[in-house]
Amino acid sequence: RINPARLWDSLMDMAKIGPGIAGGNNRQTLTDEDAEGRALFQSWCEAAGMTMGVDTMGNMFATRAGEDPDALPVYMGSHLDTQPTGGKYDGVLGVLGGLEAVRTMNDLGVKTKHPIVVANWTNEEGTRFAPAMLASGVFAGKHTQDWAYDRVDAEGLTFGDELKRIGWVGSEPVGARKMHAMFELHIEQGPILEAEGKDIGVVTHGQGLRWIECTVTGKESHTGSTPMPMRKNAGRGLARITELVHEIAMKHQPNSVGAIGHVDVYPNSRNIIPGKVVFTIDFRSHLQDVIDAMLEEFYDKAPKLCEDIDVTLETEIVGQFNPPAFDDACVSAVRNAAETLGYSHMDIVSGAGHDACWINDLYPTAMIMCPCVDGLSHNEAEDISPEWAAAGADVLLHAVLESAEI
Amino acid sequence: RINPARLWDSLMDMAKIGPGIAGGNNRQTLTDEDAEGRALFQSWCEAAGMTMGVDTMGNMFATRAGEDPDALPVYMGSHLDTQPTGGKYDGVLGVLGGLEAVRTMNDLGVKTKHPIVVANWTNEEGTRFAPAMLASGVFAGKHTQDWAYDRVDAEGLTFGDELKRIGWVGSEPVGARKMHAMFELHIEQGPILEAEGKDIGVVTHGQGLRWIECTVTGKESHTGSTPMPMRKNAGRGLARITELVHEIAMKHQPNSVGAIGHVDVYPNSRNIIPGKVVFTIDFRSHLQDVIDAMLEEFYDKAPKLCEDIDVTLETEIVGQFNPPAFDDACVSAVRNAAETLGYSHMDIVSGAGHDACWINDLYPTAMIMCPCVDGLSHNEAEDISPEWAAAGADVLLHAVLESAEI
Ligand SMILES: NC(=O)NCCC(=O)O
Ligand SMILES: NC(=O)NCCC(=O)O
Repeated sequence: RINPARLWDSLMDMAKIGPGIAGGNNRQTLTDEDAEGRALFQSWCEAAGMTMGVDTMGNMFATRAGEDPDALPVYMGSHLDTQPTGGKYDGVLGVLGGLEAVRTMNDLGVKTKHPIVVANWTNEEGTRFAPAMLASGVFAGKHTQDWAYDRVDAEGLTFGDELKRIGWVGSEPVGARKMHAMFELHIEQGPILEAEGKDIGVVTHGQGLRWIECTVTGKESHTGSTPMPMRKNAGRGLARITELVHEIAMKHQPNSVGAIGHVDVYPNSRNIIPGKVVFTIDFRSHLQDVIDAMLEEFYDKAPKLCEDIDVTLETEIVGQFNPPAFDDACVSAVRNAAETLGYSHMDIVSGAGHDACWINDLYPTAMIMCPCVDGLSHNEAEDISPEWAAAGADVLLHAVLESAEI
Repeated sequence: RINPARLWDSLMDMAKIGPGIAGGNNRQTLTDEDAEGRALFQSWCEAAGMTMGVDTMGNMFATRAGEDPDALPVYMGSHLDTQPTGGKYDGVLGVLGGLEAVRTMNDLGVKTKHPIVVANWTNEEGTRFAPAMLASGVFAGKHTQDWAYDRVDAEGLTFGDELKRIGWVGSEPVGARKMHAMFELHIEQGPILEAEGKDIGVVTHGQGLRWIECTVTGKESHTGSTPMPMRKNAGRGLARITELVHEIAMKHQPNSVGAIGHVDVYPNSRNIIPGKVVFTIDFRSHLQDVIDAMLEEFYDKAPKLCEDIDVTLETEIVGQFNPPAFDDACVSAVRNAAETLGYSHMDIVSGAGHDACWINDLYPTAMIMCPCVDGLSHNEAEDISPEWAAAGADVLLHAVLESAEI
């Protein structure tokens, strides 16, 4: 069993870096706070006898040696970056849970055939530099490194320049590492485990995703002096598509979700009819058929809804991945660990995208989820109990030990 | 007749101060550019033999003496401040049209019984410091000066501090002046006059307005991992109210308008369901009954539309005025002037609020409108022809001469 108090203390120590304004964290990727969090993690890894490797995307890999020099490592890990108004556990639990698993192996003098690596993936959140899971995506060959380096934040700074500025461009070529398996522990970020009273979610699938960026163009004009029949109100395009997205997602229950999270209205003045609205739709399902059906219905109906009110619609896919099905043997290792340790568990689909979803395309991968209070995440009020954290890290430890062969 | 070339040159000279990024102007109230525009206007007024008075709200009043020491002045004027992406004519034409009328009187040696005053009202636009028509509103007793001084811009600077900083706090107590009458020339900011092929709009009424700031509160949560039945999507509240506002305004055609121009979505991230959306509805009509009916229907229906989708609605009136009916004699003076000068004209309702709407509550007031290309305003592409500007200033001159008694 892992040491619950040590795990919790490390979580709380990390949370001191980049505190939020409401009890959570603002430790966005490639900020000074991110650099500080990385340094702390590195010092902990070194104190635990691990050696740190860093790749050209800033991904961090702390290795605990194995017995067999030819065996590929078993990876654990997640991300230390947070949303601008993020919680203390999203991502962090998976990294520090991995560290705690290694510390426990050290305490008990456990030797494994395969080396063990604890990873911190750069820019999982994707808020500062879109898209999410950027560096694991480059690792998995989904994006080129050049493209990733050119991503810009709201201030016009590039990912590449900022990675350099904080001093975390590593020497390892990204994606060069081979894995025996990878396990990611993460909070659920949804309400199911808590509602069902389960300690552990055995993640069998992830949802696939399509992000459709829409630009509705009407005509900017005065709210007072433009007669109703002469208006081209782009805001009405947003309104109609908001409801359309909801209707489409409701048709495939319980296998789909859909919503619009990001909206920019131009020029956004009380007495000017919106001339342009830019927004992004997020459609997801763990079934590829359902994703395809939702997109077909959207492209069929949305342009007409806009045409009818004399505004135009342009769309662009700005994020996409297909539903991952995690590796049977890795998923079984997770389920077995929960069973052996006596934790209540259920199979679950990951609603969110995770670094594990990209890695799963290359190497056997699985995820472990623990509940979070009220399903709340991407919110400073995100919360978990020390017991939930401990259960997750325990299952992680045991699943990894099965995979890495004691 | 006024001198069209001189008027146009002055408009172009003023437009050099605070140029926009797309051919228009960014000369927002109480900026350095506003101060520069004021200084230029003052120098022109003094060159035309007028004396400048400034009140404690920064309103500027340039006086051309009359023959009768006891006669109250006839006022002309509008505003020199612009939207952040504003045009060269909105407001400016009314001020420099007034100046051109005085220059023409000087050229012709015209003497009037009543003094003539050309006014520049501070902060008509209301974009930097809400609400619009702030200083004419204080002049007319709609707001207290203390309240106006405390208005803050997006940077947290106050109106009072900024007025002081640019050096335009005058010594006259605001509202102390009495008027015989006031005439405001303004571009229509709508498409009617151009569509009807008329040179002049004789403004008989203005629209009344209600600005309702709405806060829809749902629950911020992850777009991927929150099951559809557990969502409280504040964005759907915006969507439903956007369409409701449109439907309500369409019921009273052609006597009403309604739209939402300003929207803030929180936290505005692609993978977070909006937990809160704040937006402002703008309802207008020149008929008080219609305004009342629109508000009644809104308050009746909007909360239910939100309740049905498990989000809450709070509302606050953040701007309001009742429909002004301009003074019969002043309106006749405008119509007579257009008729005498041979300009085509039609009666029109002002869709926008103007300083004249506030002054009309105290003193006999009227407005003259000239067409603008495509009805476009609050947009850098705002455009008028030199002939339209000249016709408007001609009618202004003649209406004022009738009122001020030659
Ligand atoms: N875990 C997480 O929130 N990842 C961001 C990508 C997503 O929106 O699912
Ligand atoms: N003329 C003008 O745009 N005034 C601002 C107030 C309004 O929205 O009508």
